[in-house]
Amino acid sequence: MSAPEVTLDLIRAARERIAPYVRRTPLLDSELLSARYGTRLEFKCENLQYGGSFKSRGAVNAVFSLSTEELKGGVVAHSSGNHGTAVARAAWLRGVRAQIVMPENSSPAKLEAVRGYGGEVHLCAPTLAARAEGARRIVAECGAAFVHPYDDPRVIAGQGTLALELLEQLPELELLLCPISGGGLASGLAIAARALRPGLRVIGVEPAVADDAQRSLRSGVLAPQPSGPATIADGLRGALSERTFALLRAHVDDIVTVSEAGIVEAMRELWQELHVIVEPSSAVPYAALLERAVEPRGARTAVVLTGGNVALDQLPWQ
Amino acid sequence: MSAPEVTLDLIRAARERIAPYVRRTPLLDSELLSARYGTRLEFKCENLQYGGSFKSRGAVNAVFSLSTEELKGGVVAHSSGNHGTAVARAAWLRGVRAQIVMPENSSPAKLEAVRGYGGEVHLCAPTLAARAEGARRIVAECGAAFVHPYDDPRVIAGQGTLALELLEQLPELELLLCPISGGGLASGLAIAARALRPGLRVIGVEPAVADDAQRSLRSGVLAPQPSGPATIADGLRGALSERTFALLRAHVDDIVTVSEAGIVEAMRELWQELHVIVEPSSAVPYAALLERAVEPRGARTAVVLTGGNVALDQLPWQ
Repeated sequence: MSAPEVTLDLIRAARERIAPYVRRTPLLDSELLSARYGTRLEFKCENLQYGGSFKSRGAVNAVFSLSTEELKGGVVAHSSGNHGTAVARAAWLRGVRAQIVMPENSSPAKLEAVRGYGGEVHLCAPTLAARAEGARRIVAECGAAFVHPYDDPRVIAGQGTLALELLEQLPELELLLCPISGGGLASGLAIAARALRPGLRVIGVEPAVADDAQRSLRSGVLAPQPSGPATIADGLRGALSERTFALLRAHVDDIVTVSEAGIVEAMRELWQELHVIVEPSSAVPYAALLERAVEPRGARTAVVLTGGNVALDQLPWQ
Repeated sequence: MSAPEVTLDLIRAARERIAPYVRRTPLLDSELLSARYGTRLEFKCENLQYGGSFKSRGAVNAVFSLSTEELKGGVVAHSSGNHGTAVARAAWLRGVRAQIVMPENSSPAKLEAVRGYGGEVHLCAPTLAARAEGARRIVAECGAAFVHPYDDPRVIAGQGTLALELLEQLPELELLLCPISGGGLASGLAIAARALRPGLRVIGVEPAVADDAQRSLRSGVLAPQPSGPATIADGLRGALSERTFALLRAHVDDIVTVSEAGIVEAMRELWQELHVIVEPSSAVPYAALLERAVEPRGARTAVVLTGGNVALDQLPWQ
């Protein structure tokens, strides 16, 4: 597979490709939260995306970029959840088989979501190495096409379509906050947003206990993620790749971290004030406002709410 | 106060009046639920409305219909919650005092929401009579303008704006489901929807244990609501008035009822599949699909999700 550079043109082509299959998600403001933070604060609700997360954008772009010939063994992905659901859904839309390798400690809601779209789940040990190995075996045995959760220009370009949509909804945007895991979303967003609006600040947020991206960007050397970081944000346990590290260095303004208690409090506030369900990973960028790790100082601010797949019997504040 | 008939023109005027102060709420479909019910099923998300419910429409219309002179004693409302929040918010927007009489068993989330917009809460016994008496006293003492939760053409017209918006979003709509309490929402919706699209079916849904509307429409005689009906749907404990009874007889196709277990199951499914927070009252119309009290038979169907104010520590399935 060739690896084109991720450009605004690639992101625009992705948007055209995925348009029939993804939702233009709503942008919600909150009167009470805007008053509290002294700026108009808006939330881009990718938790209301099909499949329950922004991952549908990249997955649909990747799967619909493949030829019928390339898809004859179906597709395979490894994922802690939302990318798996998104790939299962994209395969369902395309009418091909999907096999998803998931860690055995994945949340039940995420397992159900993958199966809901007809995806076949293969459980593995909860390490990045075990996930990758499980996917490699399926590629070898079935000739399935592998869709990486972030280290793939097609996936990054798909996630970047979110920024095109957001800037149409909010052309005056000045500050954009998103979570960082493998860096695919932040890369795609930042490339698109800053190409269209050079003065826009893009800040990535990650749990303090899974801070490989912050350490990497501050040291200038790709730092590993601790294996199985103990964060409630189960979608943010991934690690940057060389590709996303380079893209983040080039396009993201800063990376800040938040505490586990802040993530839970942020999640609860978003449920209460916005009346939408966000999973812990989705609450991470808002937690940066709550913990004053980012100060909007009057800048028009948007927070990406990345996903809403939560096990409703295990709410973290109970 | 004169009591104009509620017409399409009155609803259109309301829409123009309230447009700067209410959100055009998103319409969300669900791939999985559509597949299950054999039709394209869409959800009009008034739980994402400012103040957390559709009540903002009627309250803003009523409060902004009043003159400065009429507002000099502020406004007063009685409410189990969402109407109170909506009136408090409308008064805040207009810059006048709001006093809200609420039953002492109101959910903490609803009390907080009223206070969040600066409303003054007066607790009373949990009966309709006590609520009405509390409001009368405040009118007498403060000269406050009373905003009834539903027995008021301005409020009904405001709620009807929801149908104008919905039919722009979904012109091919054939079947519309909404909850019934006092009948203001159902009346407004049905008047607007059927004036614009005569073949459209409008079905109201209420808890079987709070079925005054069904009994009234079936018998042709306004039936009382049992005092303090034991339904989890705390927003649906109101009773029809002579006005809303007459409007429902003229404009609504049918009223069906659902069980308490069905309401809880519906609420949980909506949280899981749509990733939005709906309160029990909001889940009532979807429960009618779940319990097969309504069969869409391929008709393009929309369900109004009326509100999202829930105490997050007291989820009914836990």
